[in-house]
Amino acid sequence: MKKGIFISFEGTDGAGKSTQIAFAEDYFKSRGYDVVMTREPGGTPIGEKLREILLDKSNSEMSSVTEMMIYSAARAQLVAEVIRPALEAGQVVICDRFVDSSIAYQAFGRGLGDAVSTVNSFAIGDSMPDLTVFLDLDPAIGRSRIGKTDMDRLEQEDIDFFYRVYNGYRELAEANPDRIASVNAAGTVDEVRAEIEAAFARILRRISDDE
Amino acid sequence: MKKGIFISFEGTDGAGKSTQIAFAEDYFKSRGYDVVMTREPGGTPIGEKLREILLDKSNSEMSSVTEMMIYSAARAQLVAEVIRPALEAGQVVICDRFVDSSIAYQAFGRGLGDAVSTVNSFAIGDSMPDLTVFLDLDPAIGRSRIGKTDMDRLEQEDIDFFYRVYNGYRELAEANPDRIASVNAAGTVDEVRAEIEAAFARILRRISDDE
Repeated sequence: MKKGIFISFEGTDGAGKSTQIAFAEDYFKSRGYDVVMTREPGGTPIGEKLREILLDKSNSEMSSVTEMMIYSAARAQLVAEVIRPALEAGQVVICDRFVDSSIAYQAFGRGLGDAVSTVNSFAIGDSMPDLTVFLDLDPAIGRSRIGKTDMDRLEQEDIDFFYRVYNGYRELAEANPDRIASVNAAGTVDEVRAEIEAAFARILRRISDDE
Repeated sequence: MKKGIFISFEGTDGAGKSTQIAFAEDYFKSRGYDVVMTREPGGTPIGEKLREILLDKSNSEMSSVTEMMIYSAARAQLVAEVIRPALEAGQVVICDRFVDSSIAYQAFGRGLGDAVSTVNSFAIGDSMPDLTVFLDLDPAIGRSRIGKTDMDRLEQEDIDFFYRVYNGYRELAEANPDRIASVNAAGTVDEVRAEIEAAFARILRRISDDE
């Protein structure tokens, strides 16, 4: 029996995810919730080993299907070991990326289509987020914000790839308006934060109405 | 366009797989075939890293679904990087374990059911073995043959698990009589070898008839 609240953050790089996730942690902690912070890929000892393989630049031979399955394996472990037990214990789980990342990056970015949702459905079971915050920012602006030179295997992809991912996120948000809150991430940090906190207030209201 | 021959070897531990695989290599090499030897999980740099995670005793928290997906990821990479190119080049590929291992160990052994074939179908595509040699041996006899004390994560499973795996292999063999040759592995090394070489002769005859 799930009693907690599951929130995921999504977006392409440079959209401000880390900053807003830190605010989210404060938001729930300051309201007395027991908060579990986690991230994908990784979040468990096995998942962190899989993360290393995914980000290692020397693994340039990795096939798209292999990549998709490693993400899904790390997710299955995170759900079993961290997310499901925390939700059963009534905690708030805030996850930096979840299944929408796989759909955006692998189904849309890599062109793997429906295989991604099918495979991931076995990894997730019924542990879907109650709320997903999508930080909506043009990937070219995100890239210029980062200004990084030492990029990992995924960051090295060309800009067309990130536009496919971005458009994937937008389609997901359109198809799941009850779960995914699209937030305009081009605004100031405080503007974005206010929009996200409004989404948190809505989800807390909905949950208290259900009880 | 596939032009080569794809052969996999299956069975529970102690059935004599390694010995017979070495004979198989000789069999095809001595007949002038270009032979590629490989193994699962592993067989590629990425697959070998995944193999380490699978066999590491410290990963005792691994969920069954995670395990199934890591095997499938390693398989997807092996197909893309080794098996498919070799078959397209007309080579003989001999693989120590392939998808039947996942079905026997994960679907039957771990009780994951149809999820295993569904996920693996994305890893394999149309690269199914032309011939699978199943070395049929009671797992208790196999265990006593090995007489190992330092066992990896999988070898530590109890004997009931290996009986479920074994029965899974037998069901697979019954359902796929054209592809899977069941060989009684309780005989002497030479008896087993003769049965396997008869299966090789049949597959070579079938291929030359098709041409």
